[in-house]
Amino acid sequence: MIEILDSTLRDGAQSENVSFSAADKKAVIKALADFGIPFIEAGNPGSNPKDTELFQVLGEYYDRLVAFGATRRKSMRCEEDMLFMSLIASPAKTVSIFGKASVFHVKEILGVSLDENLAMISESVRFAKSVGKVVFFDAEHFFDGYKLDPVYSIEVIKAAESAGASRIVLCDTNGGSFPDEVFEITKVVKNVLDSGVILGIHCHNDCGFADANAVLAVKAGASHIQGTFTGIGERCGNTNLSAVIPALMLKRGQNCIPPENLPRLTETARIIAEIANIRLPDGLPFVGKSAFAHKGGMHTDGVRKNPNSFEHISPASVGNERNILLSEVAGRAAVIAKVSRILTDREVNKDSPEISDLVNTIKEREAAGYQYEGAGASFEILVRERFGIMPEYFTLDYYKLLGEKTGDAEALTSAIIKARVNDRTRLRVHEGDGPVNAIDKALRKALAQFYPVLESVHLSDYKVRIIDSKEATAAIVRVLIESTDGVNVWTTVGASTNIINASVSALIDSIKYKLLLEEKN
Amino acid sequence: MIEILDSTLRDGAQSENVSFSAADKKAVIKALADFGIPFIEAGNPGSNPKDTELFQVLGEYYDRLVAFGATRRKSMRCEEDMLFMSLIASPAKTVSIFGKASVFHVKEILGVSLDENLAMISESVRFAKSVGKVVFFDAEHFFDGYKLDPVYSIEVIKAAESAGASRIVLCDTNGGSFPDEVFEITKVVKNVLDSGVILGIHCHNDCGFADANAVLAVKAGASHIQGTFTGIGERCGNTNLSAVIPALMLKRGQNCIPPENLPRLTETARIIAEIANIRLPDGLPFVGKSAFAHKGGMHTDGVRKNPNSFEHISPASVGNERNILLSEVAGRAAVIAKVSRILTDREVNKDSPEISDLVNTIKEREAAGYQYEGAGASFEILVRERFGIMPEYFTLDYYKLLGEKTGDAEALTSAIIKARVNDRTRLRVHEGDGPVNAIDKALRKALAQFYPVLESVHLSDYKVRIIDSKEATAAIVRVLIESTDGVNVWTTVGASTNIINASVSALIDSIKYKLLLEEKN
Repeated sequence: MIEILDSTLRDGAQSENVSFSAADKKAVIKALADFGIPFIEAGNPGSNPKDTELFQVLGEYYDRLVAFGATRRKSMRCEEDMLFMSLIASPAKTVSIFGKASVFHVKEILGVSLDENLAMISESVRFAKSVGKVVFFDAEHFFDGYKLDPVYSIEVIKAAESAGASRIVLCDTNGGSFPDEVFEITKVVKNVLDSGVILGIHCHNDCGFADANAVLAVKAGASHIQGTFTGIGERCGNTNLSAVIPALMLKRGQNCIPPENLPRLTETARIIAEIANIRLPDGLPFVGKSAFAHKGGMHTDGVRKNPNSFEHISPASVGNERNILLSEVAGRAAVIAKVSRILTDREVNKDSPEISDLVNTIKEREAAGYQYEGAGASFEILVRERFGIMPEYFTLDYYKLLGEKTGDAEALTSAIIKARVNDRTRLRVHEGDGPVNAIDKALRKALAQFYPVLESVHLSDYKVRIIDSKEATAAIVRVLIESTDGVNVWTTVGASTNIINASVSALIDSIKYKLLLEEKN
Repeated sequence: MIEILDSTLRDGAQSENVSFSAADKKAVIKALADFGIPFIEAGNPGSNPKDTELFQVLGEYYDRLVAFGATRRKSMRCEEDMLFMSLIASPAKTVSIFGKASVFHVKEILGVSLDENLAMISESVRFAKSVGKVVFFDAEHFFDGYKLDPVYSIEVIKAAESAGASRIVLCDTNGGSFPDEVFEITKVVKNVLDSGVILGIHCHNDCGFADANAVLAVKAGASHIQGTFTGIGERCGNTNLSAVIPALMLKRGQNCIPPENLPRLTETARIIAEIANIRLPDGLPFVGKSAFAHKGGMHTDGVRKNPNSFEHISPASVGNERNILLSEVAGRAAVIAKVSRILTDREVNKDSPEISDLVNTIKEREAAGYQYEGAGASFEILVRERFGIMPEYFTLDYYKLLGEKTGDAEALTSAIIKARVNDRTRLRVHEGDGPVNAIDKALRKALAQFYPVLESVHLSDYKVRIIDSKEATAAIVRVLIESTDGVNVWTTVGASTNIINASVSALIDSIKYKLLLEEKN
């Protein structure tokens, strides 16, 4: 068993353009926990008050959560360092403490003596352990440090080990190490550590080797891998867990998560990417949209004769799909599985016309820019429509928009909408902060009398992504709207070349889903 | 010296959504040749008439060009196989001939005897050599084949060698091999080949190991690397040359191109990505926009003290730039560092009134939802404005928007804008796919006459993020627009409670930045 620590919410949040709200963080933690990731590094409760607050409401995850922070600062006792003490005060069971494992960093960047650095590390680890924490020690800059002065770098990790750290994690912080170096150095370290300590690896991708470095460290004796689920992270990112987990499980027989969860790999990666509002590269190993796409004639022929001819694993084993001809079959099985989870009260037959219709509709919609992985509410509405069991709560007949802004004056936007409920029409106008907001308000105003329950709903997030980025404002736009009534949270999707259309479509689904929820209760 | 073969135009063209026109191919060949790539696999003149035509007009590149194709087909002589003969007829000096190096593929996919496969390979290589070609032999599925039946896979490459191939290229066609396997197997092969033959490596990235596999093959004795310049290719792509070239040159002292060209790495990658119409991932090693971006306070402090603290190489050595991300954490020192890089011709004094003004403005803007860390172009405009050296290229006096959609009819959006350049006003109207697109088009129409250079600019990405997600459509909206003129890529930001305003503000910055770039040249 290889132990996995996901740092999407800590090291991943260091990516340019990535930031997580508290709600985003909770959703990522849930997705990772559901997938079976045992350790989730969720932030730095010491230095960030928002993270401190967040940790208070995550009680059900305390066993998995890891709070991250530095050793005590120089020339202080642990108890005097408020930053260190707020790390210790985190309710998470585990703390990950990082310290410098390179003479260059100790002297030039930290500016302390080599002995004081060792004291900072061992006292901090010992203190955290004495108050009952499980302590992981991140040996920052270990590989670069080892290349400069192997004796000192080994002293650093031995100090953490003697002080009671249960994991010693070797970090290639700057991402400049080659796989053969990581292998050789990790082998040396494995031999100097006591057998009871688990050796870990934490790599960055600045040379493109972060995934290889992690698996070669495992070959050299490491059994704990740190990374981020989709590979995001500062600069060029971290070890991509959605690649190394299936690679180790399927190719080396080394389990990293419960094997029955592996087919949810692709879905999990896509959910996390949606929350982070990043685009997964099409060619991302295992989970990318093109990861099993075959284009060359000879290759498609080969795959048709025998999938092993040009596929290194079965796409279904990681919940992805082959991208030619056979995709319909693979897609269908996944669709049936999802439909069964929605329509729990009926038998779903794989040959039923509704399923064919649904599979075709999904394909059309996906070609048009929709993606249902992160938008369960829109998917449920689509399923119910295709099975003829979705009530027609209302129809939006039209909208008209007016917007203007002159010089530095305030921008004005208003929307006129006409909506129908059971042949009773309502024409309403409303101003708003932008077109979508104006339409949202006008539509709610029109529906309020029929469905007072909509009062409680508000949109909690709104994300826009360009699908085909040749000419951005004219390309396909995908909008994800997250809504909440204070108890439930649901996500809907819309896609169009027109951002207003895409938004309105997601908005309509959002309102309909709330009405559906009411009916179920 | 490690020999490089770029297959962007052949294997790269197998990527989903990538296709090259003849003009594109010529432009890619020129960019690769200018950078110093010695071998350019430019297509399959045998099976593709367009490639045959293309090769006719590439006389100046015949020494670099490699024509790619299969061995003769089964049960034919070489001269009888028109496909094979048209490969031979290519004017390129070098041909790359691929044959099956796996018993599984020979028997199950090709459907010929093991002996016939050997005959196909040796006769094809011998024939090509006899007419004066330099012959590269691509041993397809070599690693998978070796794992099934090492004796036969070795027989295959020995057959090509005896027939006169000057390069034997081991292919991990399905991308499923681990770096340690590639290393061990390549070492075995190196020992069975004659010393006069150059051993090559060709990897795919299905496990995320394509770059590591290439460098480990080099360590095992290979001295010819095949890949694509930005890593594109079928499924998960090929070895990314823009990563392995600098990694080998800067870290292992193994030259792959003339060293004086290395600072053009980033530019070359961006030109090729632009031609291929793909988006380079921000975190792409060495050449990505975020490859040297630093966000965490501790990391930005470290880099300021000594760049080696968190950078594995100097960004300038590969023509990229350090990017210190501004965030609340970073503060005045980071602002001054950034300003110094923009205003290279003046002394920036940390106590100057412009700096105080700038820091305050940034704080206000960040509170209003702006974030400059991912938007260097908007930041530069802001700096120049505060220092009084930003030309006022144009003013947008007002915009008016009209939008409507009735039932299932197409949505219509149009924008009227009034813009001014040196007191000459232009009133223009344009339809668009949504309000931002309509305003963008109308504004360009108004400015075209004054600034024809804007013709070359297009938006390459558009991202929307809600900052305060309590009530999404009424909360602060942050818009990031990425633009390109084919050579440069820049990002601008806008923020407002109104999504249209935020977008228009980022759009105006995008246009102004292009005009600024023109002035600098």
